[in-house]
Amino acid sequence: MSNLQMIQAAAARLDGHARRTPLLSSPFLDEIAGRRVLVKPECLQHTGSFKFRGGWSAVSALDEATRKRGVIAFSSGNHAQGVALAARRHGAPAVIVMPSDAPRVKIDNTRALGAEVVLYDRGSEDRDAIGDRLAAERGLTLIKPFDEPQVIAGQGTAGLEIAQQATKAGIDTADVLICCGGGGLTSGIALALEGHAPGLRARPVEPENFDDVARSLRSGRIERNTRTSGSLCDAIITPEPGRITFPIMARLCGPGLVVTEDQAMHAVALAFARLKIVVEPGGAVALAAALFHPEQIEGDAVIAVASGGNIDAEVFRDALARFPA
Amino acid sequence: MSNLQMIQAAAARLDGHARRTPLLSSPFLDEIAGRRVLVKPECLQHTGSFKFRGGWSAVSALDEATRKRGVIAFSSGNHAQGVALAARRHGAPAVIVMPSDAPRVKIDNTRALGAEVVLYDRGSEDRDAIGDRLAAERGLTLIKPFDEPQVIAGQGTAGLEIAQQATKAGIDTADVLICCGGGGLTSGIALALEGHAPGLRARPVEPENFDDVARSLRSGRIERNTRTSGSLCDAIITPEPGRITFPIMARLCGPGLVVTEDQAMHAVALAFARLKIVVEPGGAVALAAALFHPEQIEGDAVIAVASGGNIDAEVFRDALARFPA
Repeated sequence: MSNLQMIQAAAARLDGHARRTPLLSSPFLDEIAGRRVLVKPECLQHTGSFKFRGGWSAVSALDEATRKRGVIAFSSGNHAQGVALAARRHGAPAVIVMPSDAPRVKIDNTRALGAEVVLYDRGSEDRDAIGDRLAAERGLTLIKPFDEPQVIAGQGTAGLEIAQQATKAGIDTADVLICCGGGGLTSGIALALEGHAPGLRARPVEPENFDDVARSLRSGRIERNTRTSGSLCDAIITPEPGRITFPIMARLCGPGLVVTEDQAMHAVALAFARLKIVVEPGGAVALAAALFHPEQIEGDAVIAVASGGNIDAEVFRDALARFPA
Repeated sequence: MSNLQMIQAAAARLDGHARRTPLLSSPFLDEIAGRRVLVKPECLQHTGSFKFRGGWSAVSALDEATRKRGVIAFSSGNHAQGVALAARRHGAPAVIVMPSDAPRVKIDNTRALGAEVVLYDRGSEDRDAIGDRLAAERGLTLIKPFDEPQVIAGQGTAGLEIAQQATKAGIDTADVLICCGGGGLTSGIALALEGHAPGLRARPVEPENFDDVARSLRSGRIERNTRTSGSLCDAIITPEPGRITFPIMARLCGPGLVVTEDQAMHAVALAFARLKIVVEPGGAVALAAALFHPEQIEGDAVIAVASGGNIDAEVFRDALARFPA
């Protein structure tokens, strides 16, 4: 259902619209990790996360009449912004259903990107029912955050770039660490690497207590998290891996890695000091694994995806205060 | 003495060594500025500033025997790190003479990049005498921070990239705003644009009270600053424009722009929130001019170089606290 050809087709649709992010590095990070560390800064992608790739891929894959009716997404964060901007640039209406207790700045940003934001009360209202009603009334197309082939294909375009950039950097064998929520980015990159850089191995990274993917890969079946809130790594917290993404990850990925919140915050501070990029805690778990779990990684080099940078200023200031360079 | 051919030759020597930085943008910044804003994030360059380009260009231009004896540079920061890493990667010894009151992070980084750091007291010691003595004793080659043709040529490679990237973005007429100290980056970019994108006009940007270049461009002769310390924009504070750089700027640049320190700090906070990059105050003056002095800029688009990101965590935290998104 998701395959290399779809990723290549998505890359053609994204060309000139999504940003081709570079690979960054620092001798200071290499020294901490004990090997070469290359970072793919998807925080520099439009809307501050890789989600723009999947949003663009999904919106651009719709036929003209369907697109004109508009799209709808459920998200309190990065997927919302990615879909909102992708829709606006296609001239398509976008409705984003967000919990009314989402941070004001995220609601405002999503509105400012041209989307109609529909708020619901987490306690008393049924998000899916609201979405279904709106979709039926207006003929909107639902864009799921990860378990959707065209979204996976869009995220996979980051993997095509990694394959090319690693080759140019002289790396043909390495672990590629990927911040993992539902697995859209991880499975997309894994498919791209399988086709274009078979010596590179995709590995999901999660925060402790929310390691559903690592456990699922070990057991061979979908495992759930016991809770889905209360983490600084909110961007990558999902109940369980997707029905489409999990089989791809089970077939292609190496073992999952798990880091603490403190390690993620430390990686946020090191990315500030050494790479000059802004990464959110959930977007920093892969770099944290590269730096603080070197014994679980193979090879002379490691590639870590910094998947997003939409962090509140207070949290960022706290990371810098707690982990001075 | 400095010309387009030298810049093209430097670009060939830098290929595969310096980073080709992207052009970043955000609809939120466009809205503040009232026009399209494109940012060239040289904070993402190796060592966190454009200075690596000039350092690499100068070190790589030396003959083998001269290079092996080593290089020496005077710098309070970014030039020091650029030269140190460029020298190390060429296997050349580097001595960096730094004021003892330079930001701690810059001194530590320069040492960690393999250079020998010699500290001097700005008030009581003669920097040039210290450098001359060391150079004579060890046969070191001095790499000046800006008034040196191969350094200007290296910085100009950023201008070649801007010319190509602007064309790809559909921009053929725009002001290119450049954070300006002694004028190495500004004059190098101006020469590159003259040759490759004549519709793009280089314009220096400085902090208030340190606007020697803006005043020199107005009067047509080299004007000095009354002081050279006490600014958060330390990276771009010099006594006066260079003897080589000024004639180039006088021939090619549009009028200089001047911003306040508060505007620079505000731009630091906006670059964090909207571009997910870490910029130091001196590296943010061009973006500040783009955002807060739109009436002094011509055209539907503006390009701003974010020249460096080597900022102490305390200053960065202060910027985020003072200017919440």
